[in-house]
Amino acid sequence: MNQINRVVIVGGNHGNEFTGIYLVKKFHNHPDLVHRSSFETLSLLGNPKAIAARVRYVEKDLNRCFVQLRNEDKPANYEELRAREIQTILKPKVPDIEDVIIDLHTTTSNMGLCIILGNRHPVLLELAAVLSAINPLVKVYLHEQPKGSGFLRSLSDLGFALEVGPVPQSILNAELFQQTEQLIYTSLDYFENYNLGKNLLRNNTLTVYRSIGVIDYPRSENGEIQGMIHPQLQFRDYEPLHPGDPMFMTFSGEEIVYKGNDIVYPIFINEAAYYEKGIAMHISQKELIEIS
Amino acid sequence: MNQINRVVIVGGNHGNEFTGIYLVKKFHNHPDLVHRSSFETLSLLGNPKAIAARVRYVEKDLNRCFVQLRNEDKPANYEELRAREIQTILKPKVPDIEDVIIDLHTTTSNMGLCIILGNRHPVLLELAAVLSAINPLVKVYLHEQPKGSGFLRSLSDLGFALEVGPVPQSILNAELFQQTEQLIYTSLDYFENYNLGKNLLRNNTLTVYRSIGVIDYPRSENGEIQGMIHPQLQFRDYEPLHPGDPMFMTFSGEEIVYKGNDIVYPIFINEAAYYEKGIAMHISQKELIEIS
Repeated sequence: MNQINRVVIVGGNHGNEFTGIYLVKKFHNHPDLVHRSSFETLSLLGNPKAIAARVRYVEKDLNRCFVQLRNEDKPANYEELRAREIQTILKPKVPDIEDVIIDLHTTTSNMGLCIILGNRHPVLLELAAVLSAINPLVKVYLHEQPKGSGFLRSLSDLGFALEVGPVPQSILNAELFQQTEQLIYTSLDYFENYNLGKNLLRNNTLTVYRSIGVIDYPRSENGEIQGMIHPQLQFRDYEPLHPGDPMFMTFSGEEIVYKGNDIVYPIFINEAAYYEKGIAMHISQKELIEIS
Repeated sequence: MNQINRVVIVGGNHGNEFTGIYLVKKFHNHPDLVHRSSFETLSLLGNPKAIAARVRYVEKDLNRCFVQLRNEDKPANYEELRAREIQTILKPKVPDIEDVIIDLHTTTSNMGLCIILGNRHPVLLELAAVLSAINPLVKVYLHEQPKGSGFLRSLSDLGFALEVGPVPQSILNAELFQQTEQLIYTSLDYFENYNLGKNLLRNNTLTVYRSIGVIDYPRSENGEIQGMIHPQLQFRDYEPLHPGDPMFMTFSGEEIVYKGNDIVYPIFINEAAYYEKGIAMHISQKELIEIS
């Protein structure tokens, strides 16, 4: 089985998500914290211009720029250029052995300590089982995407995101900072043990929330939102939403209910950065996966 | 006694504080909601360019631009220009009778439903007592400032802000939206009754938190923050902070305690927009005011 040669930790893929930024700065000052014997660890700030300006991005969301490149494509803006630089850095040194990518994010949604997987690679599923076994607050969101789909994590079969919240943009919450830090150390320990052939304690059954789509806010013809997340749904990420349950409240106080036929599990409810993307929430189905 | 001729409601003085923006849009669509018989009501979007860009401000914080103008001063940027436009709109129609200004804000701090007063005008103190009597969650922050000190509310002796949180920047929280809306209607009813010579039920004693200063984050020589609000202080706005209580936590997990000699009451703890202003929190003293 292939060994892991390098783990890349990226903070500030979004410039107003402070937790990852200050964690990466901490690792730059104290590289011993993320050093492990069996692989190289590289920690990296994703979007320096956006970090300096304390905004998500300057011209285009960097975390939608990591696509399969053709040689003739020219970067159209700062983020496309920066995505290429990062892709060059992340090019595997050993052919066919991909780097682990840990992409650090925060969200205004009540997602707790969430690991977002882009695929069902057994090494990632086992990592998710290890993290869940150590901390039952850890949730797993399976947002399956092809390689080079735009997300940083999609550059590698061993890429994943840590998505922690609720925390407003542009602030630090000490408790979530420390919990995110702990998830990173546990992940590094897991990869170390994987390389050394040791097993970490883990559950054999993993609960994942598998993405099945997104739902937008009610909007007027000109795109203006006409309502808000219903108070009964706010902060209820990962909880079942039944047909007929209240979903939105219009500005005049009328309820809009969920009209689907099946129970779904909303995630990313009321994420600030998704208003402009036409996303009020992701919806998912709950799935049990056996870890062999 | 002077009557109130006009009440001006401003949303989006900061472009990423959505509650006030969508309330003002609602009032534009339904002017009857803010219409009262004895005065004119004007609702106004503060910073249209920042609202369009979903940022606090474009070039300079608009809510620091409302200063006493001299004729020879030229506006140096968009917000200084916009502040002049608003000052022209707010110029009292009847000399010596100032407009009421209700400036709508949100904060990432746990300030609940806060009315911020810039002075001790008896009409404002009585309004605060009325709002507190109706909803015990209402708090009063007395942040005394001279006229034309930069804040929108400082343009009028009858100016005040409603500061509601905690809510991240760039999102709507339906519950806080409705609570803010209710505070506006109660305020309008109060001014109506004031004009009509009627009294609204109120407390005779008002608890206010009077600003005595601000405290910055621990920082390095180059200005980089070195720590976060301590988990034991996070969300504890209006609660007493005793000498020796933990205040910050460094990125390596060390506690920094409050070294003052007196009990203070922190407010605006961990407000996102204040990182760049060098403010980790405001501190205040608790004061009881008798309303005659």
